[in-house]
Amino acid sequence: MQEHKILLTECPDDTGLVAKITNICYKHQLNIIKNSEFVDNETKRFFMRTELHGIFNDQTLLADLQFTLPEGSSYKLLPKQRKRIVILVTKEAHCLGDLLMKNYYGGLDVEIAAVIGNHDTLRGLVERFEVPFHLVSHENLTRVEHDQLLAEKIDEYNPDYIVLAKYMRVLNPEFVARYPNRVVNIHHSFLPAFIGAKPYQRAYERGVKIIGATAHFVNDELDEGPIIMQNVINVDHTYTAEAMMKAGRDVEKTVLSQALELVLADKIFVYKNKTIIL
Amino acid sequence: MQEHKILLTECPDDTGLVAKITNICYKHQLNIIKNSEFVDNETKRFFMRTELHGIFNDQTLLADLQFTLPEGSSYKLLPKQRKRIVILVTKEAHCLGDLLMKNYYGGLDVEIAAVIGNHDTLRGLVERFEVPFHLVSHENLTRVEHDQLLAEKIDEYNPDYIVLAKYMRVLNPEFVARYPNRVVNIHHSFLPAFIGAKPYQRAYERGVKIIGATAHFVNDELDEGPIIMQNVINVDHTYTAEAMMKAGRDVEKTVLSQALELVLADKIFVYKNKTIIL
Amino acid sequence: MQEHKILLTECPDDTGLVAKITNICYKHQLNIIKNSEFVDNETKRFFMRTELHGIFNDQTLLADLQFTLPEGSSYKLLPKQRKRIVILVTKEAHCLGDLLMKNYYGGLDVEIAAVIGNHDTLRGLVERFEVPFHLVSHENLTRVEHDQLLAEKIDEYNPDYIVLAKYMRVLNPEFVARYPNRVVNIHHSFLPAFIGAKPYQRAYERGVKIIGATAHFVNDELDEGPIIMQNVINVDHTYTAEAMMKAGRDVEKTVLSQALELVLADKIFVYKNKTIIL
Amino acid sequence: MQEHKILLTECPDDTGLVAKITNICYKHQLNIIKNSEFVDNETKRFFMRTELHGIFNDQTLLADLQFTLPEGSSYKLLPKQRKRIVILVTKEAHCLGDLLMKNYYGGLDVEIAAVIGNHDTLRGLVERFEVPFHLVSHENLTRVEHDQLLAEKIDEYNPDYIVLAKYMRVLNPEFVARYPNRVVNIHHSFLPAFIGAKPYQRAYERGVKIIGATAHFVNDELDEGPIIMQNVINVDHTYTAEAMMKAGRDVEKTVLSQALELVLADKIFVYKNKTIIL
Repeated sequence: MQEHKILLTECPDDTGLVAKITNICYKHQLNIIKNSEFVDNETKRFFMRTELHGIFNDQTLLADLQFTLPEGSSYKLLPKQRKRIVILVTKEAHCLGDLLMKNYYGGLDVEIAAVIGNHDTLRGLVERFEVPFHLVSHENLTRVEHDQLLAEKIDEYNPDYIVLAKYMRVLNPEFVARYPNRVVNIHHSFLPAFIGAKPYQRAYERGVKIIGATAHFVNDELDEGPIIMQNVINVDHTYTAEAMMKAGRDVEKTVLSQALELVLADKIFVYKNKTIIL
Repeated sequence: MQEHKILLTECPDDTGLVAKITNICYKHQLNIIKNSEFVDNETKRFFMRTELHGIFNDQTLLADLQFTLPEGSSYKLLPKQRKRIVILVTKEAHCLGDLLMKNYYGGLDVEIAAVIGNHDTLRGLVERFEVPFHLVSHENLTRVEHDQLLAEKIDEYNPDYIVLAKYMRVLNPEFVARYPNRVVNIHHSFLPAFIGAKPYQRAYERGVKIIGATAHFVNDELDEGPIIMQNVINVDHTYTAEAMMKAGRDVEKTVLSQALELVLADKIFVYKNKTIIL
Repeated sequence: MQEHKILLTECPDDTGLVAKITNICYKHQLNIIKNSEFVDNETKRFFMRTELHGIFNDQTLLADLQFTLPEGSSYKLLPKQRKRIVILVTKEAHCLGDLLMKNYYGGLDVEIAAVIGNHDTLRGLVERFEVPFHLVSHENLTRVEHDQLLAEKIDEYNPDYIVLAKYMRVLNPEFVARYPNRVVNIHHSFLPAFIGAKPYQRAYERGVKIIGATAHFVNDELDEGPIIMQNVINVDHTYTAEAMMKAGRDVEKTVLSQALELVLADKIFVYKNKTIIL
Repeated sequence: MQEHKILLTECPDDTGLVAKITNICYKHQLNIIKNSEFVDNETKRFFMRTELHGIFNDQTLLADLQFTLPEGSSYKLLPKQRKRIVILVTKEAHCLGDLLMKNYYGGLDVEIAAVIGNHDTLRGLVERFEVPFHLVSHENLTRVEHDQLLAEKIDEYNPDYIVLAKYMRVLNPEFVARYPNRVVNIHHSFLPAFIGAKPYQRAYERGVKIIGATAHFVNDELDEGPIIMQNVINVDHTYTAEAMMKAGRDVEKTVLSQALELVLADKIFVYKNKTIIL
């Protein structure tokens, strides 16, 4: 049966890598729909994303690659298919609302398996879209206990990615380690400016002329994970901190949903603390 | 009772206009919250928007202005209050969805009185938000007949503005004349490029590197009304016409809702075929 | 004789300020070409910039203002005329070159009185444009000694503003205090991200997807003065630190010259650590 | 001797093209520094740009490609080296000035062989940079005669590309046909809006909120060639046509020099009326 898959290859740079990999695909009679590669000259690391079409024999293909590629290589062969996500929220609706709405009209090809809130505020909105909503309150719980409950609830849905759509709590390192490069966050500033809490208030106090938003993978340091996408808008002296926050919502929601589009299309390699988007 | 009103003044330019108008406000013990003015040097036309706070005696205030300002002046004193809109749609959900969602979470301060579609496609979405949806089909009707039915349905709700959120039919001049500077449209191109139908297809064929969207008031010429707001995004050779259309949706919805914010705040003067936004 | 002047008023907010000030102008038979005001609601501070045309009696005008305005007011009446600047540089040509070139073709209305470098690298470029170049080397001097020599050389030209066009040394607090709100710097990052040295290297290491530049007044803290203008460009994983630096040059030069345009037109109030641009 | 070359391949799409081409490179022991490809699914056309490093035997390499690739293929093997340009100007200095300045400080790696003006206005600027300036006046000449003189002067310098840096005359089709895809123009509007003369005046009259600039190759239709790069800036009702023109200069010069950077790096394929930039 004809299928559409994505081959992600990452290995130490070497001569002839493109030829070697595309040759193997050719011998397997797989048609290359799209191919992109990148060599990081600093770390001498090679990255390649290949969209393939044809009849796949996964095992022989991967064996051929392993036989041919240098040591330290890694490769994934992923079916091109709809991913499943779980969204974490607190009280703010704009990012969640945009994901629900885009998904509703087909602007984002994803299955929103469930939304989990540490407050109940957004239940009504979520249920309008026939998506299950779960309240996992943090009250009277330690962070570790709460994150553990979150993880259990998340795992019931076995999602490909977890999306923090203005989830306003820090996640403990254990939680984060459980989902490496699988938690996507939207931070309401142009990182690394205004890491941490109340970025709009601080942007206001600093008198900046541009504010922004950053979508990134979450790793163990607060607001320090690999950046996927950033965008900005102009502000001026007439903006209060609140007006910045309000204006910032449109950037936040757009950056999050566009970053997610890249994530869901398997276009992103994470290497060290950076993303390579092919 | 203390109130918050907006005074919009438009008149032939003259010396001392700012002094004269602000004096009258001062004598009425009205506090100026915000004041902006603009003189179009080409047409020697003066525009001023004044946000006032205090106890209003509308009649004497307007009489004082009339007595003081030069002939050919016009002024409006508008209460600062929530406006009511009716939205017209066809089949596409992204602009409508964004308005419904922003309104839901308080990002757009407006009463969406009703949505009218010439197709029934979006009924389900609208009703999720407890907003009445009316199907006014154009089938078996002339344009004039159909527009007449639309107008009747619109007028039941007595809206301040009519928003065309991807309403894909041309409105006849009579309809447009009935609502001067009260119909806001989103056009899916960077006007005046690609006036008319299928702008993304034509942008694709022309090989442009930027696409955009334009929010404008509708007057009797197709896509020719006063422009309120425009925005753009970058595209490249990898974008098909369909990919442009998909990417364009985020710009369209953002431009429409941000333009609407200006309209709803009574910040726009229309003079000849242009907008002055104060 | 008919003249064109700019009145900058700053005072505690009060009722009727616009009326009072514009009335005085009107009584002096001065025509208001352009007027903009802003009230900072947090600090209850009022700012107004008024472009006036007519026959000025500066002393009576200022006396009338002083008599009318609340205590704690300050006002400046500035002739609308070409300003004089001295530019400080190190070795990089792009910002300096853009200022020289824009000035050459009339894109920036300013008199470049002199360029001072702590290296001799840019002498050839400067002298091509018939502008005096002075080498004030920092070798074998303490920072204070060097800055003292700079100040002496600057003061020979009695400039309105001092422009740091990629001057790569920190200026000591005494120097800065000598020219309050008169030193304009271009910083090669999107402040407050990457304050200090090597911003492109750090932007590269952090894996940001947008880089920027910031023009600001210099006060005693490094990269901490009131921001005038900022702008950004997109980058991706293919950019090395050096490529970012190269791409950043176009933003740096544009931001600096556009910020300078605002400064030279007396459009900027500095209040606390922010700019109000009217 | 180790060299650095660029292989540009264009052919009907087929299975295994990437494998076949990279294999040939591999067999020639050429290291692929960077590779990008694109398939236009509409026209089933394949484009690939390959940066190679190693010891080249051009003839065998090209023979191997010809033997392997499908009929209708074309390929170029270009040394990675500094290109030579001739610039055509009229009276405006900003685009020319930016190219001269960027070239001066190494921001644009090109040899500016000569500047030719149909007016003498810019001679002084050009000669400051030790570049030959030639006046080729159009007075008392037909367009064809004038273009003929231009072409003769241009051909003395044997340039790789001809850059129209605000050259304000239309070139006749014969001239254009002489330099296919080798003439780069900057148009002072966001094409296809405002094709032809006085775009800023018309943008002003239309009341647009964004203006732009377009760099494109020149073919026989006015402002209709393949677009290389576009960029925009925001404007509002306070901009006169002249203010738009002034503000537009910074965009024009940046778009032209950045487009030229792509051209000079052999990153552009022209196919039908579009550019593919790899």
